[in-house]
Amino acid sequence: MTDQKKLSDLTWREFKKLSLVEKGGYFQGDPPHTLIAQQFTRAKLEELCTLATKIKRINKRRDGANFLKTLLSDKRAMLYFAQPSSRTYLSHNAACQILGLDTMDVRDTKTSSEVKGESPEDTIRTFSSYVDMIIMRHPTGGFAERVAWMLAHTNREIPVLNAGSGSDQHPTQALLDIYTLERSFEKTGGIDGKHVMFVGDLLRGRTVRSLAWMLSLYTDMTLYFVAPEPLQIGQDILDLLDQAGTKYVVTDDFSSVMPLADAIYMTRIQDEWDADGESSTIDTSAFGIGAEHMDVIKDTTVIMHPLPRRKEISTDIDNDPRAVYWRQMRNGMWIRAALILTTFGRQDEVNRYYDDYKPEA
Amino acid sequence: MTDQKKLSDLTWREFKKLSLVEKGGYFQGDPPHTLIAQQFTRAKLEELCTLATKIKRINKRRDGANFLKTLLSDKRAMLYFAQPSSRTYLSHNAACQILGLDTMDVRDTKTSSEVKGESPEDTIRTFSSYVDMIIMRHPTGGFAERVAWMLAHTNREIPVLNAGSGSDQHPTQALLDIYTLERSFEKTGGIDGKHVMFVGDLLRGRTVRSLAWMLSLYTDMTLYFVAPEPLQIGQDILDLLDQAGTKYVVTDDFSSVMPLADAIYMTRIQDEWDADGESSTIDTSAFGIGAEHMDVIKDTTVIMHPLPRRKEISTDIDNDPRAVYWRQMRNGMWIRAALILTTFGRQDEVNRYYDDYKPEA
Amino acid sequence: MTDQKKLSDLTWREFKKLSLVEKGGYFQGDPPHTLIAQQFTRAKLEELCTLATKIKRINKRRDGANFLKTLLSDKRAMLYFAQPSSRTYLSHNAACQILGLDTMDVRDTKTSSEVKGESPEDTIRTFSSYVDMIIMRHPTGGFAERVAWMLAHTNREIPVLNAGSGSDQHPTQALLDIYTLERSFEKTGGIDGKHVMFVGDLLRGRTVRSLAWMLSLYTDMTLYFVAPEPLQIGQDILDLLDQAGTKYVVTDDFSSVMPLADAIYMTRIQDEWDADGESSTIDTSAFGIGAEHMDVIKDTTVIMHPLPRRKEISTDIDNDPRAVYWRQMRNGMWIRAALILTTFGRQDEVNRYYDDYKPEA
Repeated sequence: MTDQKKLSDLTWREFKKLSLVEKGGYFQGDPPHTLIAQQFTRAKLEELCTLATKIKRINKRRDGANFLKTLLSDKRAMLYFAQPSSRTYLSHNAACQILGLDTMDVRDTKTSSEVKGESPEDTIRTFSSYVDMIIMRHPTGGFAERVAWMLAHTNREIPVLNAGSGSDQHPTQALLDIYTLERSFEKTGGIDGKHVMFVGDLLRGRTVRSLAWMLSLYTDMTLYFVAPEPLQIGQDILDLLDQAGTKYVVTDDFSSVMPLADAIYMTRIQDEWDADGESSTIDTSAFGIGAEHMDVIKDTTVIMHPLPRRKEISTDIDNDPRAVYWRQMRNGMWIRAALILTTFGRQDEVNRYYDDYKPEA
Repeated sequence: MTDQKKLSDLTWREFKKLSLVEKGGYFQGDPPHTLIAQQFTRAKLEELCTLATKIKRINKRRDGANFLKTLLSDKRAMLYFAQPSSRTYLSHNAACQILGLDTMDVRDTKTSSEVKGESPEDTIRTFSSYVDMIIMRHPTGGFAERVAWMLAHTNREIPVLNAGSGSDQHPTQALLDIYTLERSFEKTGGIDGKHVMFVGDLLRGRTVRSLAWMLSLYTDMTLYFVAPEPLQIGQDILDLLDQAGTKYVVTDDFSSVMPLADAIYMTRIQDEWDADGESSTIDTSAFGIGAEHMDVIKDTTVIMHPLPRRKEISTDIDNDPRAVYWRQMRNGMWIRAALILTTFGRQDEVNRYYDDYKPEA
Repeated sequence: MTDQKKLSDLTWREFKKLSLVEKGGYFQGDPPHTLIAQQFTRAKLEELCTLATKIKRINKRRDGANFLKTLLSDKRAMLYFAQPSSRTYLSHNAACQILGLDTMDVRDTKTSSEVKGESPEDTIRTFSSYVDMIIMRHPTGGFAERVAWMLAHTNREIPVLNAGSGSDQHPTQALLDIYTLERSFEKTGGIDGKHVMFVGDLLRGRTVRSLAWMLSLYTDMTLYFVAPEPLQIGQDILDLLDQAGTKYVVTDDFSSVMPLADAIYMTRIQDEWDADGESSTIDTSAFGIGAEHMDVIKDTTVIMHPLPRRKEISTDIDNDPRAVYWRQMRNGMWIRAALILTTFGRQDEVNRYYDDYKPEA
């Protein structure tokens, strides 16, 4: 887009009325915010994947790792995790450390001064006062957007990175999934044209919703949504795919579609969102994968999972080369480092270093 | 003073008997401790304010920020917060990070080995063993002084910085308030001769008590204590002001004195110190400030608040240029960095760098 | 040993059957793990003690401290403390900071995604994904060994440092004890031939068990186990000493053996391991030390304690030069820094720096 839309020009009411894609247009300013999957273009996704791989390779050498730590050594970030999450917290923290970005964290809402009757907006503005970036996870849907909007109306707007808000958005998880798919299909023509299968609790897993949208940016995809009927993907996602012209299949018959997949994306039952234990009344036994399926799927199929898992993936297949979920998790660290670096606009320093030293793959 | 008084020469009983000002004379040793507002001279306050501004300006440039991080990169500090406090914790932590000072923190008393029956003195001595400085907040009044005294009687005395103890002292809050006043009155002749108004819960807010004392070091001040009678300032503070010859007004009529103020320092009702919910029986509705007062106060008046706020300041005035409380909060980070740096006696390195590079304001 | 034994060659069942000393042979690989006291040879102990002293001396100078921080600045460690422990946590954290090793920590098991039904193995594998080393403390005996074995069977084995597991092993505590003894006896011929006395709860203190074993590597030692009968040292340790040919005395009469000691190692009653408050029924009053014993013990005797203490050591003797428990605690930081550095094989960089600059003692 030619003239950048500014978040500070909108009232909250105006902002709320926008579609997700429209909102995305307001997050590319200075500073940029990372709030929703729908703000990413395919070009941006490819830029981030390329940068993540460069960072990963540079980091393998001691002098490379020490170079990376100079990139953001003059900045500080707040890790505000009002909802427990080891994985997302640790990978963001590690990404910051790779870039030399100092972090402070608030992980337990009880230690904050909310106990003194402060509003959530004031609390966040407080946190923002001492740092150059906020990375936040919050149980309330849309809260990260609210924070970005609020900071845009102060004289000290800093970038907000949404590390998961409520049940709606978790954009960096979708980024790491895209990065994992891209790496997995590196030698087979890339993501375009692949069959990607989502399995499990598709209703409440924000990951699947974000990733499905991002995959609609690629050409000739076929997505499969495989779930028991009460946990099937929302119609809003299917509408988005229809608009984008992305093919999809909705089914509850895992075993019959399994052989078609290039990637099988497993998810766990998100019973923490249950109103009244309804998950326990649903038979999910047919929505798992284990040693008995290894001959059914293709030799080139990759098995992914956002983790943590329960029983939907048997530990028996952890050492199968097609099980990429542990690598996928580590990919989160690299793609987040790439994202944070671009947030501060310093990716060219990595590009130059990479061109000079050409670290091996 | 010519010959430095040594904390290690006193028994605890002797130390306890001293007045606050007398005590202050014992905290200027090697290492210096920061324990009470009364230990500061006007010269020291001015030195810290000047240094804070230099640090703030140097930090704006990437190479400046990287220079600052070399200043204490060979030191480690303990952040021991036995009482929850986002703001004080984060600003001290940020100040340490600005100076490259590594930190470790104990924020939850349950994770400490107090559960194994250790005495508080042993616990603190343990913490002190691994670091070069302790920054501590504790619910027990006088505990930070006790710690400094105790460490002075070991062979490894390290500086103690009191980040709030009980209801009695919070000296770095007073420092950041002085720094904010100094910056606010930079173009109008400085703090001397100004009218500073304190509003709200003056009985239990340790901030006001410390700041009032510090302001007595300036000339021709007029202080206003504006509070409902049961929450009015303690007689001990008024006695100190009398001794110093500082003028003051005690009133419960906010609206009539409001136009006289150069600075209005709002505070919240500290009902966490209530014995039995007595705060709720006091009518505090007349001790707030909002849009309706913006025409009553002067154009040059600054509105301050130690934060967190409740309803005593309406969010409607947050964007009024006279509302400086958010800037005030961020000032805490800079003045604490200045304080920590002087604790280790390395302020000259900043002065030299500043003179060489003259960063813009 | 000529050809290195590999943990990845063993099933868990095979590994479990090995003796402690046999197990130790499997922890010296690449990367090395630190899991049990029995994996150390005397040569390794001496190497670590020498290295710890060099690090300590180099750290005294500002440029030395800054040099040390370059040693592992390209690495990251996870501090996973599923059991509260100020002392062990802080000293490991400080050791990492001395070496410039970035750390992330998980100290509260509730913040981990165990709440989402993840297995402990998956949780640890997650933590390991983002770092180059795990330093862990866990209430389950043998869990650290399980983790090392598990990681050895993945394609990303990283070193595991056991910072205390259940009631069985706490090898770095034993290391700091050895280091303290070595420093204490530096001018009296070293550890060989000394009389070392253990007092208190010898049944459940893992520290004493590990240290007793390590002392069996020295020649002509006499160990004294002084405890009320129900808390006396286990027969397994005495069997080990018998095998090693180390002399020992088992007694409940502290006062009569006290004058014989070169080192008195006090311990507290570990009543957190009580099944039903049985500790309170045991008379432990004769197993303490205080001012009244200072004339009974030798002038050269050192009094040690792993801390935290309760009443078994009177604070009255804290300033007696023979009371070395506070120094002992700080020694933990230096020996852990030495251990972590050797884990990454970079001790030669310290040796070279030390030879070039020869810092004073």
